[in-house]
Amino acid sequence: MTNTLFLLAPLGSASALFFAWFFYRQMKKESEGTEHMARIASYVRKGAMAYLKQQYKVVSMIFVALVILLAFMAFVLKVQNPWVPIAFLTGGFFSGLSGFFGMKTATYASARTANAAKKSLNAGLRIAFRSGAVMGLVVVGLALLDISVWFIILRHFYPLTDGGHNLIIITTTMITFGMGASTQALFARVGGGIYTKAADVGADLVGKVEANIPEDDPRNPATIADNVGDNVGDVAGMGADLYESYAGSILATAALGASAFLGVVDHQGRSLQLNAVIAPMVIAAIGTLLSIFGIFLVRTKEGASQKQLLSALGRGVNASSVLIVLLSYGVIRLLGLHTGIWVALVFGLASGLVIGKATEYFTSASYRPTMRIAENAKTGPATVIIAGLGTGMMSTAIPVLSVVVGTIFAYLFAAKFDMANVSQGLYGIGIAAVGMLSTLGITLATDAYGPIADNAGGNAQMTGQDEEVRRRTDALDSLGNTTAATGKGFAIGSAALTALALLASYVEEIKVGLIRIGHATIQFADGTILETAKAGFTDFMRFYNVNLMNPLVLVGAFLGAMMAFAFSGLAMTAVSKAAGRMVDEVRRQFREIAGIMEGKVEPDYARCVEISTRGAQRAMVLPSLLAIAAPVVTGILLGIPGVMGLLIGGTSTGFVLAVFMANAGGAWDNAKKYIEEGNFGGKGSPAHHAAIIGDTVGDPFKDTAGPSLNILIKLMSMVAIVMAGLTVAFSIFK
Amino acid sequence: MTNTLFLLAPLGSASALFFAWFFYRQMKKESEGTEHMARIASYVRKGAMAYLKQQYKVVSMIFVALVILLAFMAFVLKVQNPWVPIAFLTGGFFSGLSGFFGMKTATYASARTANAAKKSLNAGLRIAFRSGAVMGLVVVGLALLDISVWFIILRHFYPLTDGGHNLIIITTTMITFGMGASTQALFARVGGGIYTKAADVGADLVGKVEANIPEDDPRNPATIADNVGDNVGDVAGMGADLYESYAGSILATAALGASAFLGVVDHQGRSLQLNAVIAPMVIAAIGTLLSIFGIFLVRTKEGASQKQLLSALGRGVNASSVLIVLLSYGVIRLLGLHTGIWVALVFGLASGLVIGKATEYFTSASYRPTMRIAENAKTGPATVIIAGLGTGMMSTAIPVLSVVVGTIFAYLFAAKFDMANVSQGLYGIGIAAVGMLSTLGITLATDAYGPIADNAGGNAQMTGQDEEVRRRTDALDSLGNTTAATGKGFAIGSAALTALALLASYVEEIKVGLIRIGHATIQFADGTILETAKAGFTDFMRFYNVNLMNPLVLVGAFLGAMMAFAFSGLAMTAVSKAAGRMVDEVRRQFREIAGIMEGKVEPDYARCVEISTRGAQRAMVLPSLLAIAAPVVTGILLGIPGVMGLLIGGTSTGFVLAVFMANAGGAWDNAKKYIEEGNFGGKGSPAHHAAIIGDTVGDPFKDTAGPSLNILIKLMSMVAIVMAGLTVAFSIFK
Repeated sequence: MTNTLFLLAPLGSASALFFAWFFYRQMKKESEGTEHMARIASYVRKGAMAYLKQQYKVVSMIFVALVILLAFMAFVLKVQNPWVPIAFLTGGFFSGLSGFFGMKTATYASARTANAAKKSLNAGLRIAFRSGAVMGLVVVGLALLDISVWFIILRHFYPLTDGGHNLIIITTTMITFGMGASTQALFARVGGGIYTKAADVGADLVGKVEANIPEDDPRNPATIADNVGDNVGDVAGMGADLYESYAGSILATAALGASAFLGVVDHQGRSLQLNAVIAPMVIAAIGTLLSIFGIFLVRTKEGASQKQLLSALGRGVNASSVLIVLLSYGVIRLLGLHTGIWVALVFGLASGLVIGKATEYFTSASYRPTMRIAENAKTGPATVIIAGLGTGMMSTAIPVLSVVVGTIFAYLFAAKFDMANVSQGLYGIGIAAVGMLSTLGITLATDAYGPIADNAGGNAQMTGQDEEVRRRTDALDSLGNTTAATGKGFAIGSAALTALALLASYVEEIKVGLIRIGHATIQFADGTILETAKAGFTDFMRFYNVNLMNPLVLVGAFLGAMMAFAFSGLAMTAVSKAAGRMVDEVRRQFREIAGIMEGKVEPDYARCVEISTRGAQRAMVLPSLLAIAAPVVTGILLGIPGVMGLLIGGTSTGFVLAVFMANAGGAWDNAKKYIEEGNFGGKGSPAHHAAIIGDTVGDPFKDTAGPSLNILIKLMSMVAIVMAGLTVAFSIFK
Repeated sequence: MTNTLFLLAPLGSASALFFAWFFYRQMKKESEGTEHMARIASYVRKGAMAYLKQQYKVVSMIFVALVILLAFMAFVLKVQNPWVPIAFLTGGFFSGLSGFFGMKTATYASARTANAAKKSLNAGLRIAFRSGAVMGLVVVGLALLDISVWFIILRHFYPLTDGGHNLIIITTTMITFGMGASTQALFARVGGGIYTKAADVGADLVGKVEANIPEDDPRNPATIADNVGDNVGDVAGMGADLYESYAGSILATAALGASAFLGVVDHQGRSLQLNAVIAPMVIAAIGTLLSIFGIFLVRTKEGASQKQLLSALGRGVNASSVLIVLLSYGVIRLLGLHTGIWVALVFGLASGLVIGKATEYFTSASYRPTMRIAENAKTGPATVIIAGLGTGMMSTAIPVLSVVVGTIFAYLFAAKFDMANVSQGLYGIGIAAVGMLSTLGITLATDAYGPIADNAGGNAQMTGQDEEVRRRTDALDSLGNTTAATGKGFAIGSAALTALALLASYVEEIKVGLIRIGHATIQFADGTILETAKAGFTDFMRFYNVNLMNPLVLVGAFLGAMMAFAFSGLAMTAVSKAAGRMVDEVRRQFREIAGIMEGKVEPDYARCVEISTRGAQRAMVLPSLLAIAAPVVTGILLGIPGVMGLLIGGTSTGFVLAVFMANAGGAWDNAKKYIEEGNFGGKGSPAHHAAIIGDTVGDPFKDTAGPSLNILIKLMSMVAIVMAGLTVAFSIFK
């Protein structure tokens, strides 16, 4: 039964990849429209591919260096599992591949969406959404593929013979491929985020504010770079990010399952350990199949209103969510796990939905907060910005409370309300994260759809399509903004839960690391001796003094909080520097190239693409290396208590800071749109100018620093996990 | 010997209060100048006093409610020490009194400083600085008074008979008066901060940006409110804040000393416990005497440059700092404590100095970061703001690293490099905080001097003094900005260290609380039983499972991080709302009252004062009550692990967030001044307009939300401490 259910994982993977290919082929068959449309699309595609090539070149060099380091640790220092260097590589490779496929699809889809929108709104929605679905399905498909293949291989090398300890080795080894995925994702998010916002800010400041030409106007030299940016940041970056969240949550939960159910048997005396390990994989596989089903439900009738469009997407997502709740109950019961595990999963899903709703409330112009920010535009840019910062800060309350409630109840139900049943409780937190991400196939589709619609709008604008076509692409784009905000909420919430699960996995890795360097027993301060293999989470906390009276834990938390801010600061500064260069270049072209403003001469798009590329490549390395170095250096200097303090400080501050930045940015964006709809003076009014400044400040918040923080908190945990052996062996404070 | 040394505390208090009175008398003897100058000063004084009266009325009502609650807990529920309600009241009373005296002096000093500046720069500096010294000395004098009196009274009621346990009761009781001081300080900071920035933002946006009239122009209706705001926010608010930091660090350290040195004897067999308790008091008393000495060193020659002015102030501060390092060594040796304790003190002082220097680097226009922000003004307000946010975030690194290094080494040296010597190590962290604040008498004088110089400049501007006089008051004002930034760094750094010491005191209170409700022993999960009175910090961590695998600790940290953001968001939003009303009112007066702009008719200053007052009063209650409620509600719902998670999450995030906001605000302010000096287009250029917007956004950052966070983190700890008995008795999770 268990092995049969496990087969759902490769099956889910194959189905996802098949339908991704199917939707891709379908999309490619459509026409790109006029030669002009195809040409603009090819500029964007070439720019995006050139960037990605450059990006992967830099990342490859860093990967080579890290693999050598990991191999040295594994084969020379012997503080590392020998599988780790290869696992690290596959994680990075698949994460990059997700971004690549997603972006390739997106850049082919934009002109086709614009062209289809000439026919009807529904035709445009279908192409854009199904192209977004390619990305969603590639991400879950590749993640399940990587997980299934590794699990099969490692089970071959570590057969289940010694009462379950091998399963701990297998799962803790597998989790290290998460570090590869995280590392690649961080570069993708930071690099892509800097790229896209340097271009966007530069294009807006000179184009919209100074030259008073509309968004995506072909006379703006930065407009191609701006559209390339949507693809490399919002598509490729997000794909890599969520690949990593998705895989990370499944792997961390599997590892927790291996230790929580070691030696636990059902009423017939059969071991439940393997069942607990594969449960997250099976749930993810079923969620994938349901996502495919949900994708087919998304369609709308012609002339649909914004609300009907939203409900068309909602239908697909809701159907998948309801069905996963029902089916996962069956899976968990079939696997012999208790109902509390299922309740934990439901709490995870519910807490994701609450975050989504709260995000909508704080960032949509249909509600008070964003309206009030827009109203503040009447008194100028300073008050818009103060109001947006204030609202963004307050908006952190509901998402945090929702994750707190979800975490506590997931723990309690999974632990059968016994606080001392730590390992099963922590497993419940992992299952909650898996629950939140179970329908990622379709939620990511609604998210990736956004930049495709955005680019379709850009293409329509640049090629001078009819008013009606642009109205349709605008409707699709606007819908994308709402789904993107919700998607960001999910990404952040799941990152927080995954980070908690990874924190627990870290302790598991410490155990494995201790055994590897020959510490078969641990001895407490009072002289009690315990067999390392049998020690539980609380025992390790006691052994290493990971409590809140240990100054190493306390200063670790300070360092973690600081990391979140310093990292964001580096990303913001990078955007500000690159955007400044972009502004100078756009001003120069307007000044020096005669005929641009009359539309007679095409501006030098390539120069702007180059500025964004170089700005991103140069600036992404330092913050990324900082994130990798922090847990290693902290581990050597402050030991395991310091690392755990770093992780909880980084996770809590990073989580809240990310929500703040995402929501402030989203609210400014929509406050501007609200004014553009004719409120407080409408387009071109002083209030509109003030709101554009707010939106511009929000850009690096919501699209560079904010989403990069999701990865930062997981990457620091992943690095800590992979380097646990090193810390155990070489830390100054033992 | 011990009792003789203790007498230094009342002696220090008396000297401080005497010299405060002396400087106040001296200042009052000076002339206020012309009738016009006296009239403007009286407007400001009356506005400030009216505000303070209103503020104290609201705070009194809240205090009455809290005292009733505390009395109920003490006398009905019996989970509280019966002294607490009175201690709470005296703390609040003295904290309020510090603010009141400081503000009274400041409002009398501004016109006198302006008038003295007619004579010479040195005369102006003397009056402004010695008036600032009144505040510095009142704060330390009253704090030492309160501490000495309580210590004498409680020693009378709890004589030293039972081997030292009474000293634990005495010190843990005394710490609760910190909650009164914190509560009053929070209201003063939040209320004063909202008041001052609503007026400042409103005055700047309409006056400087729209009407193009200079700062402090008498035609601006909000100008009096703006000057009142400097007094109620920067003087009264800061006085209450630092009273609370200063008293809190001494009391927390005394409490840690009582437990760390319980039963510890010197080589002659004499108990060191009392010595460890009075050590922070004696060090503070000596620091006070040295501050008075340092104040007399501050003088400058006529025609001094900015640099010479700065070095005049620096001479006083440096002399006090060097002498305290030397003398405290003697004190600590005389008290029989080991040299490591002294090293801890030096690390605290040094880490304060590093924070001060880092603050200067990141906020002064003499260095790259602020220049770069100013340069970003060339591309408009959006890039100024992005650059300022980015720089502010990055600027958190050095202060945090400095506190981390200071904390670790203070712990290690005080614990004689034995990590397991937790109680003496934590005592060392407390001593480091005391060291950082030991020369508060003079550092606060340089800080309180700022708003006096600022108001003197306002008075000179409004009464149309000669160009030369205004040049002198501008020089004094500009100096004040630098010292204020350094002062804020000290306030934040000391708050972080104090919060760590308070976290340890919280565990002490739990011990006392357990004994009070009759738990003479605690039993661990493995069955071991320990006498509660003899259990150490680590034992309580184990007993309550306050480790990083307990989900209650983890979600507590999330809640703490969220509290810091939500609280700041409320403060920012309050400023944005009140500033909006102020802008409307100023615009209305310009529009409706004929003759204002020609200077023929005096604007309706009182109406603007009222708007600020009401905005502040209305908006300060919610965030303040939230801060008080959070630890209580968390305690009931999530128990002691949840509260400790909340405190470390709130402290780490609040610390970093506060540094970010203070530095970003300071940098924007000075970037604007740098442009005004003629760079990037100078006054009136587009870059200048962009920089004014940056400065305006920074106002609520650096003067409302940022400094309020210092108090938030300490108030949450203080409330947790006072409510520890309640949590122990009634929490859901035991």
